[in-house]
Amino acid sequence: MTLPSDDARNAPGPGAPPSRRTRIRRIAENARYDRATVQAIVDAALMCHVAFFDAEGVHCIPTGCWRIEDHLYIHGSNGSRMLKILQSATDAVVSITHIDGLVLARSAFNHTMNYRSVVIYGPFELVPEAEKGPSLAAFMEHLAPGRQTQTRPGDATELAATTVLRISLAESAAKLRTGPPEDDAADMGRPVWAGVLPLVLTPQPAQRDPACNEASPEHAVRWEQRRF
Amino acid sequence: MTLPSDDARNAPGPGAPPSRRTRIRRIAENARYDRATVQAIVDAALMCHVAFFDAEGVHCIPTGCWRIEDHLYIHGSNGSRMLKILQSATDAVVSITHIDGLVLARSAFNHTMNYRSVVIYGPFELVPEAEKGPSLAAFMEHLAPGRQTQTRPGDATELAATTVLRISLAESAAKLRTGPPEDDAADMGRPVWAGVLPLVLTPQPAQRDPACNEASPEHAVRWEQRRF
Repeated sequence: MTLPSDDARNAPGPGAPPSRRTRIRRIAENARYDRATVQAIVDAALMCHVAFFDAEGVHCIPTGCWRIEDHLYIHGSNGSRMLKILQSATDAVVSITHIDGLVLARSAFNHTMNYRSVVIYGPFELVPEAEKGPSLAAFMEHLAPGRQTQTRPGDATELAATTVLRISLAESAAKLRTGPPEDDAADMGRPVWAGVLPLVLTPQPAQRDPACNEASPEHAVRWEQRRF
Repeated sequence: MTLPSDDARNAPGPGAPPSRRTRIRRIAENARYDRATVQAIVDAALMCHVAFFDAEGVHCIPTGCWRIEDHLYIHGSNGSRMLKILQSATDAVVSITHIDGLVLARSAFNHTMNYRSVVIYGPFELVPEAEKGPSLAAFMEHLAPGRQTQTRPGDATELAATTVLRISLAESAAKLRTGPPEDDAADMGRPVWAGVLPLVLTPQPAQRDPACNEASPEHAVRWEQRRF
């Protein structure tokens, strides 16, 4: 990810100022509340974790996600327990985390990780019928640009069986760490290797369905250039 | 990940039979409740999402994790709100998800993702003082095998400032999908490319701290061979 410039970071955004719930207190210097940083981390995500509460307790479920303007969208079957609960829940939380590496310090205590994360609080709302098709098209565009015109689109039955929900990014916060380890001054002379073991979610060559003989479309050819 | 054989999958484990909360109802054929599958997915994880509930609502926070026998462990500063709440909460949930690829079907509706996921329900418990050091050593071994003997170990003050919690894997479930898309029979003849766009969390070459002149230890040299 290219991090936004300071100018962009200071632009007024839905995430600033932090709420009681989004104000980051642990290692607060890693917190970001600006729209550009939150959006960049959300846009690099293909999936998120959604946590919510019902009579059986707290749940935390992974699901695909995409962004349209200042909302994060999720979708699924009308029969999904999670989607049913989220429609009536006054509150939920979405967490997105990209792990970028292990940070190995000279002391065990100062080991950490490099990461980019966003937490979004708020209620989910049902996306109206008329917006369902366009919002699902935006999801397809997020996953595989240009594919929308190639596949068989959802028919009336499939669309009717699908629920699309969205949550505003208004109450959100980002937290991220980059760079080498930070050791205590007294440990800097220790004869121990220190550095970062980087991790990148890497696209591998597209695998054509054995039952398919079609030539690769541009989104399959370009897949290996995607960065997350 | 190498998936366990059917024999291993049928071995009695802490995850079988599923509880009310862990029984997977959506696409139930992707569910697994055996110990070997749950452990393999947990062991491939460097971090997890922990969801819990307090007076301000539901929270979902990413944090590093590791497994010792039939428990998942997390740690952090004694001052962490999350760790304080989890010690008194009767209930929490941990979610681990590895995304393995986008599954592009001939119809928009049948698009999906390949993934390996685990959800763990239960209370966290405080790891007793005497087990704190050994359990943190196991975390280091999980991150960077052999490093434990090279770094400066935590001193009494650092150890005293650290809380280690664990949650039993007894109430857990895995869900995973692998393989090519599954289209409706009526769509199989459509002239549209179908297949998988694979994703792998890939270790990149170790980056030595610019302030460090030490030779690379084995865990840094071998880092690029790690699979998650």
